[in-house]
Amino acid sequence: MRHITHIRDLGVDGVSRVLDRALGWKTTAPGAIFSGRILGMLFFNPSLRTRASFEAAMLRQGGHAIVIDVNSGSWKLETADGAVMDGDRPEHIREAIPVLGGYVDALAVRCFADGNPAVDVQDQLMHSIRAHSLVPVVSMESAREHPCQGLADMLTIREHCGELAGRKVTLSWAPHIKPLPQAVPNSFLLSAAAAGCEITVAHPPGLELQDEVLSEAQQLAQESGARISFRNDQQAACADAEVLYAKSWGGATDLDFAELARQHSGWQVTRSLLEAGNVRSKLMHCLPVRRNVVLSDDALDSELSLVAPQAHNRLHVQRSLLHEVFNGGN
Amino acid sequence: MRHITHIRDLGVDGVSRVLDRALGWKTTAPGAIFSGRILGMLFFNPSLRTRASFEAAMLRQGGHAIVIDVNSGSWKLETADGAVMDGDRPEHIREAIPVLGGYVDALAVRCFADGNPAVDVQDQLMHSIRAHSLVPVVSMESAREHPCQGLADMLTIREHCGELAGRKVTLSWAPHIKPLPQAVPNSFLLSAAAAGCEITVAHPPGLELQDEVLSEAQQLAQESGARISFRNDQQAACADAEVLYAKSWGGATDLDFAELARQHSGWQVTRSLLEAGNVRSKLMHCLPVRRNVVLSDDALDSELSLVAPQAHNRLHVQRSLLHEVFNGGN
Amino acid sequence: MRHITHIRDLGVDGVSRVLDRALGWKTTAPGAIFSGRILGMLFFNPSLRTRASFEAAMLRQGGHAIVIDVNSGSWKLETADGAVMDGDRPEHIREAIPVLGGYVDALAVRCFADGNPAVDVQDQLMHSIRAHSLVPVVSMESAREHPCQGLADMLTIREHCGELAGRKVTLSWAPHIKPLPQAVPNSFLLSAAAAGCEITVAHPPGLELQDEVLSEAQQLAQESGARISFRNDQQAACADAEVLYAKSWGGATDLDFAELARQHSGWQVTRSLLEAGNVRSKLMHCLPVRRNVVLSDDALDSELSLVAPQAHNRLHVQRSLLHEVFNGGN
Repeated sequence: MRHITHIRDLGVDGVSRVLDRALGWKTTAPGAIFSGRILGMLFFNPSLRTRASFEAAMLRQGGHAIVIDVNSGSWKLETADGAVMDGDRPEHIREAIPVLGGYVDALAVRCFADGNPAVDVQDQLMHSIRAHSLVPVVSMESAREHPCQGLADMLTIREHCGELAGRKVTLSWAPHIKPLPQAVPNSFLLSAAAAGCEITVAHPPGLELQDEVLSEAQQLAQESGARISFRNDQQAACADAEVLYAKSWGGATDLDFAELARQHSGWQVTRSLLEAGNVRSKLMHCLPVRRNVVLSDDALDSELSLVAPQAHNRLHVQRSLLHEVFNGGN
Repeated sequence: MRHITHIRDLGVDGVSRVLDRALGWKTTAPGAIFSGRILGMLFFNPSLRTRASFEAAMLRQGGHAIVIDVNSGSWKLETADGAVMDGDRPEHIREAIPVLGGYVDALAVRCFADGNPAVDVQDQLMHSIRAHSLVPVVSMESAREHPCQGLADMLTIREHCGELAGRKVTLSWAPHIKPLPQAVPNSFLLSAAAAGCEITVAHPPGLELQDEVLSEAQQLAQESGARISFRNDQQAACADAEVLYAKSWGGATDLDFAELARQHSGWQVTRSLLEAGNVRSKLMHCLPVRRNVVLSDDALDSELSLVAPQAHNRLHVQRSLLHEVFNGGN
Repeated sequence: MRHITHIRDLGVDGVSRVLDRALGWKTTAPGAIFSGRILGMLFFNPSLRTRASFEAAMLRQGGHAIVIDVNSGSWKLETADGAVMDGDRPEHIREAIPVLGGYVDALAVRCFADGNPAVDVQDQLMHSIRAHSLVPVVSMESAREHPCQGLADMLTIREHCGELAGRKVTLSWAPHIKPLPQAVPNSFLLSAAAAGCEITVAHPPGLELQDEVLSEAQQLAQESGARISFRNDQQAACADAEVLYAKSWGGATDLDFAELARQHSGWQVTRSLLEAGNVRSKLMHCLPVRRNVVLSDDALDSELSLVAPQAHNRLHVQRSLLHEVFNGGN
């Protein structure tokens, strides 16, 4: 049994293998490879793309999905070991997770960050679910990472810009009304590191990603030949970028994010930013995105935007990833 | 690609064709014609019949449906162009709609009226969804119309009363605890006009349907041979009706609906109304219906009620309509 | 058409037949026996196991399920006959239930108890749904019983302890933060009575199950050879138990349950209770369970616990039961 919940579960070779297969299956669909398979989809948090693309990936290949929303129509789940369960959560994941394993062939789980990056990076709930599951677990985003998003990002760059090795990509922080998890920036960084890109991460001071993730990215980069640099100057960071990946994220709990976002509202990604510098940058974002807060309408509605094909590629990488999940390896 | 969200998308010929096919398939089921097809079902509002009958229509013919409830388990969707999205809706339909088109083969959408008939008749949100969709859109009721209901209504009359041309049908307003959208009365009127019925619309003064709908109904009537008349006297309007279609709806925003409904509480449809006049009228209603407010128990529980077969026919007309949607024409 | 909503719908022979078939199909899966079948699943209350195991049972055998949650995404349903429906429930089950029967081949219904055992035992809503349904109804737990749980309990005992006739099983009340329905204890008692077990029911004074259920259990016992006794002393009741079934339930509405639960907090089921007496007792519970309230961690996490295979057996008995439902008999 093999869980795939973090980019390190795939490594450099695995990322490459999943992308190659996903690309090949865009040309020649693989048929009913999930026939007789049921994916249990467990949501602790809301979803549109992930929900629809995972379910479609199963159905298109002859399989099925059962969707369970912990906050609506199911029991709230306790996650703390040793808890005296006299509150509003009548069921423990120590029961719920192994029970589901008796009904389905794999579990896809979404459990977002709580808001403290130093804690979120430990990804306790996802690790606990992995530990208790009787069937393979695949991530639909957890506190630390959103690996399917990272894989879809790489597939999109490969299709629209060419081979990933040495590709100049910039991940830029952008303003938002509230501090968001670091899972998506983490996954973009880790995926691009595994894929050998030349990566620049740009953000205002105080919004550094967690050390655990940065050092894991450096290890992947060493193996793949990727290069990673950091800037606090958005314009400079975007000057040579073939791809500008816009994404907001929050920092430490003692950071006044509202004040920081106000101060750096100029980091909103606009069409003029995409067209500044030496190359016109393609625009990426994982969605959902707040228009005219994170990105301007003129950027998102321009021909430079890859957000629609990027979202569509979720289906394609997940189909490829689920194949590994159901086949216990590669 | 062909959207079917309004009766005018079908026209006189299309309504007839959809009904003929639906009727034929009640005798000889069409087999796995939706094999490999996924219908994305997007709900901005609640549903029982529509949800179950669309999903059953897909499953019975070998297809699948993915249900997305915007108010539960998904992101709330912004619909206004140019919005600065700093409120409680983190995703725009300009992203959500094209993204879903990468996962499914057609989109079924439910987006109810807001309560101002003069605005609702423009059906802005549905038109916006049509404009942004990469796949065919079919209506599960929008602000202006509920075409699948209108088609199911016609199929039911045809089965229970005979050929539609010249059939005497009366649409009667009925009391309610609050002003309801005009989508269902609009669709009954437009469908019956397309089908060539002899239509009477009865309501208290002040509850006129919108001019745009009335003139569209007259155009359809001209082509089909239908006749349309209007009355403010319920008894007179029902005297010759083979079918009495009961339905409440609201009027202009400056109308005191509660006062009007109190004043006209006598418009509640009862068994004695069905049996008054020259013919015993069959009773129809789209459901859900508030018993002993809109209709009396003795009307709804009588052998004159067609509400159950009428609801069942939703499945049959939708199967026929989806065939057109997936086959890009007729 | 045959509804299966209570153990008496099966009787001694039916319980045995369903269990035999379920056991056989664990060895040799029955294939696509539900091909072309749609199960409508109607939830008035939350669910995890029941939702997932029923849907999986349909999908694994080639069928499909449509899930309708009355409290989310559908209309709230009125259940009282003769109601003037001017409140917050716009649809009556007199319409909703027969309408659904036009779309699906059977209805699975979950409608929990309201909290007054003397009323709950009448199971009015479930009987009303049976009366109005056009297709077979199967219970996913109602006010009076949870028959699929009872059947899964028996299958688990048979697999882990041997033949059911004469098997020593103890149903023990346990503390809880609030009074729970008696449906699960009722179903365990009725199923074990139908299966011929030697049953002890243990609870503090004041928590007697309803007379209607006790006398039905005695009738089943007479036919099957089961024996039923009652104790107010937990230790004594567990001394010879091969199986200790822990479950909390509430009593009459004038009972101060909080005070009673506080007084009897020592009834929490622990590992030392399982190991006291003459035999080490296997532990069963229907889940969800509040850890360290109803059961201690050391009991639930011990090798004596059968709760996971017990939950997994839900799928197996339901597969067997649905076969009867769809085939109108045995």
